Amino acid sequence: MNKKLLDVAAGRVKADTVIKQARYLNVYTGEALCGDIAIVDGYIAGIGEYEGKRTYFADGLVVPGFIDGHVHIESSMTLPRSFAAEAFKHGTTTVVCDPHEIANVAGVYGIRFMIDDSRGGDVDFKFMLPSCVPATSLDQSFCTLSAADLAPLYKDKSVIGLAEVMDAFAVIRGEDAVLDKIDRATRLGRAVDGHAPCLGGKELCAYVAAGVKSDHECTTMDEAMEKLRLGQFVMIREGTAAHNLEALVGLVDRYYDRCMFVTDDMHPEVLIQKGHIDRIIRKAVALGADAVKAITAATLTPARYFGLTDRGAIAPGLRADLAVLDEELFVKAAFSGGKKQKSKVRDWDFDTFMVSPITKADLDCGKKEVLGIVKGQLLTDDCGTADGVDGSRDIVKLFAAERHHGTGHKAACYLKGYGIKKGAVATSIAHDSHNIIAAGYDESIVLAVNELIRIGGGIVVTDGERMMSLPLEIGGIMTARPCGQVAEQLEEIKRFAFSLGVNEGVDPFMTLSFLSLPVIPKVRLLPSGVVRM
Amino acid sequence: MNKKLLDVAAGRVKADTVIKQARYLNVYTGEALCGDIAIVDGYIAGIGEYEGKRTYFADGLVVPGFIDGHVHIESSMTLPRSFAAEAFKHGTTTVVCDPHEIANVAGVYGIRFMIDDSRGGDVDFKFMLPSCVPATSLDQSFCTLSAADLAPLYKDKSVIGLAEVMDAFAVIRGEDAVLDKIDRATRLGRAVDGHAPCLGGKELCAYVAAGVKSDHECTTMDEAMEKLRLGQFVMIREGTAAHNLEALVGLVDRYYDRCMFVTDDMHPEVLIQKGHIDRIIRKAVALGADAVKAITAATLTPARYFGLTDRGAIAPGLRADLAVLDEELFVKAAFSGGKKQKSKVRDWDFDTFMVSPITKADLDCGKKEVLGIVKGQLLTDDCGTADGVDGSRDIVKLFAAERHHGTGHKAACYLKGYGIKKGAVATSIAHDSHNIIAAGYDESIVLAVNELIRIGGGIVVTDGERMMSLPLEIGGIMTARPCGQVAEQLEEIKRFAFSLGVNEGVDPFMTLSFLSLPVIPKVRLLPSGVVRM
Repeated sequence: MNKKLLDVAAGRVKADTVIKQARYLNVYTGEALCGDIAIVDGYIAGIGEYEGKRTYFADGLVVPGFIDGHVHIESSMTLPRSFAAEAFKHGTTTVVCDPHEIANVAGVYGIRFMIDDSRGGDVDFKFMLPSCVPATSLDQSFCTLSAADLAPLYKDKSVIGLAEVMDAFAVIRGEDAVLDKIDRATRLGRAVDGHAPCLGGKELCAYVAAGVKSDHECTTMDEAMEKLRLGQFVMIREGTAAHNLEALVGLVDRYYDRCMFVTDDMHPEVLIQKGHIDRIIRKAVALGADAVKAITAATLTPARYFGLTDRGAIAPGLRADLAVLDEELFVKAAFSGGKKQKSKVRDWDFDTFMVSPITKADLDCGKKEVLGIVKGQLLTDDCGTADGVDGSRDIVKLFAAERHHGTGHKAACYLKGYGIKKGAVATSIAHDSHNIIAAGYDESIVLAVNELIRIGGGIVVTDGERMMSLPLEIGGIMTARPCGQVAEQLEEIKRFAFSLGVNEGVDPFMTLSFLSLPVIPKVRLLPSGVVRM
Repeated sequence: MNKKLLDVAAGRVKADTVIKQARYLNVYTGEALCGDIAIVDGYIAGIGEYEGKRTYFADGLVVPGFIDGHVHIESSMTLPRSFAAEAFKHGTTTVVCDPHEIANVAGVYGIRFMIDDSRGGDVDFKFMLPSCVPATSLDQSFCTLSAADLAPLYKDKSVIGLAEVMDAFAVIRGEDAVLDKIDRATRLGRAVDGHAPCLGGKELCAYVAAGVKSDHECTTMDEAMEKLRLGQFVMIREGTAAHNLEALVGLVDRYYDRCMFVTDDMHPEVLIQKGHIDRIIRKAVALGADAVKAITAATLTPARYFGLTDRGAIAPGLRADLAVLDEELFVKAAFSGGKKQKSKVRDWDFDTFMVSPITKADLDCGKKEVLGIVKGQLLTDDCGTADGVDGSRDIVKLFAAERHHGTGHKAACYLKGYGIKKGAVATSIAHDSHNIIAAGYDESIVLAVNELIRIGGGIVVTDGERMMSLPLEIGGIMTARPCGQVAEQLEEIKRFAFSLGVNEGVDPFMTLSFLSLPVIPKVRLLPSGVVRM
């Protein structure tokens, strides 16, 4: 107990900072109230009449700092603190992240790296431990993380639970490996997040009975209501690719105490240009939600769900995590509380590319399956087979190669609907195992993949002569460069990809990066070959 | 994880019991829904369509079992399991108790005895550790409980937090002894209950900043709103002596997610004849509260506040703690879930009467202070001094004796407003230290006190010849006899006391039992003498 807090609260000692005559939102009672907010050592000591060494006049409504309840920072391609610098500008003060991608690439090393990097910034990072590495037994990730592998990580104070339990059917069947992970988290009193699109009825009962307490995959009100009724918290997801707010905004006014906002996967330019949780609040209000309730769903509710008793409201003893909003709910200023911990960032020192350069022979596949891209979806169509590349019918080569263990596994088939007229695109962002995936024309694929290997991962685009790359030197999925710079480079290389003919409505990189994920129907290309679901 | 739960939920195995086609209250959404509730091993597996080895048709609305958020079981004069047997009939399935009284009498031994006795019944007992033994440094209790004394008790799974921090000013001043207790509970993630009547402003900010998260002493809406706004949960108390529901019922509809119902101190006949938490719900509804919200305040909210994630609603994975209500909200049946733990009750084996018989000379006090009883209040008036007993002016003798350590401390003075015309009343229920207190005429006081010492505590009434007693052999404040029997004996001995002339509107025992509590103004008699506040 920091006694300075009591001294300031009781009026015996001056505060560090007083937000004088603040109009602030009390999320406990839903009232807009007025008072001086006294802050000392990063915590709120009292609200009332106070004097401080510094005085600040807030030009707007003071609200608790926002909490993103579920995000894979890796999708922003930047490191936690770089993400934090941008998110904080948008009033975010707590980010609950699931380092699932880096865990697939670098195991516990990757998780610890993310935790280390996250310290000391303006955003307080909390971590949920990846529960399904690899996503399924088909996937060839760097490693398999067991309950015993994860257990020591709970010692870190920033680790607050178990992340989305994706293998819902393993839970329902009662498989020990996954139940063991849930049990350990539950026994420690930690949150256990769910991921169970379209699950309902008896199967959902079993999933909930096992201890899974939330879901961020709801796409309809019916689905969300069933999950709420069974006691799950509903995380309303509004990311770069997945937009569920419009369908679920009806929850906010009635169940703001049982739902919250999350971004899940978000590209850097969205964060920079449009905002973070504040963007979702504005959209919810534009769709008709009550602003006070939307803000409560973005602050008090996630704090409660995750057991973060030191935040989520403006009250004595809580972190001085605050945002100042204008009338249109744009963030004018933000405060971040708590004790600042000095970050001990280690260098990324983990080789995730154990793979040899490829040759044109690796792309010979003869008669093979054709994966069909479905616009605006992650689903694929089964388009039969083809004998060879045929640009006039929009059929190009698709290639995948294992990169973690030097197994030499590689496979090729055909892709329809991508649109590329010449050259190739290759990337090491390939959910969830993040092996190598590439699409285009044989000679260009060889060029692009070998360049990708040479630079240690990222995104490479070539027209057959010119080569452009976005190096992601950290595990092949992130970079230490600042978020803004990454966003610009990403825009530039995306323009180059579209100039090669990639179809409108297809994201040249994100679409490609999901063609290896063996949990989405109908056909996928893995380094081990084509699989159907 | 009990896999049978998953097997039943998924429909692979039959439930133990199915409540078929139940109309039940979903406290997450506030809806009345229909479905089969499948129960196995005391837990709810699923809700939907299920088959069971036994089928039960509920003739009424099925609701979650009720939770009493704060009670001193000792005030019922019976042991936890005896209390439980009656409370369960009224739909109570969880009782959060503060063994403050027995802790004053028998320290850690007393707390452990209560925990041991509480196991194995239909009500699940949880314990908050007494934070202020003794209540203040003036009090002569059996022992002083430090943070270090309490710490090992947290190892017991039924111990869930720190009970009412009564010495609010010690907290506000920042005294280590009490902050240490709060810090330990907070670090363990446990609840810390408050007790701060009329505290507000900067002092309340300091008290809340220290980590005190609830209050059950609010008597006005203004006081409750101030506490709610600062983040405290408000416990609405409706006990035998303290009735706060009428003043606070306005909270229920708006803040049912931040308030709950508690009884604090309740005599056994109230529990038996009028009910428990169900009684408070009925009264709240009669006063205009919404029934669904009142029930939520009695179930989900306290479960959340205390971190009891395995109860408080009807959902898969939770304890099958249920009550069936008729249309007037009377309890028709109750179910109790969880794994039944076999109780290992030890005998009470702790002598709490280290005190010698008294003589008439101990009552000689000459000219002394007169304490004046204020009807219907625990407060006392300062009525100056008197030279001797004078029945015609309603001035009798008041006597107090230390009983824990054989210090020989005893003191006498005068009492006005009690009404007794002959004989005496003596009791070892004397909050909070539970020394001996007696009132009446000298010779009868000697008879009554010596009989009280002989029987090892309880309540003794004499008219100077006939002697009637309610033995409370456990610490002088409780008995192992059943609740119903105690209630009858209490009624009988109370009638005897009134027959001696005790004034209407004065409880012959409870009024007496607070005349030694040195935290209530204006004058008190302690074994060490008269004190003024």
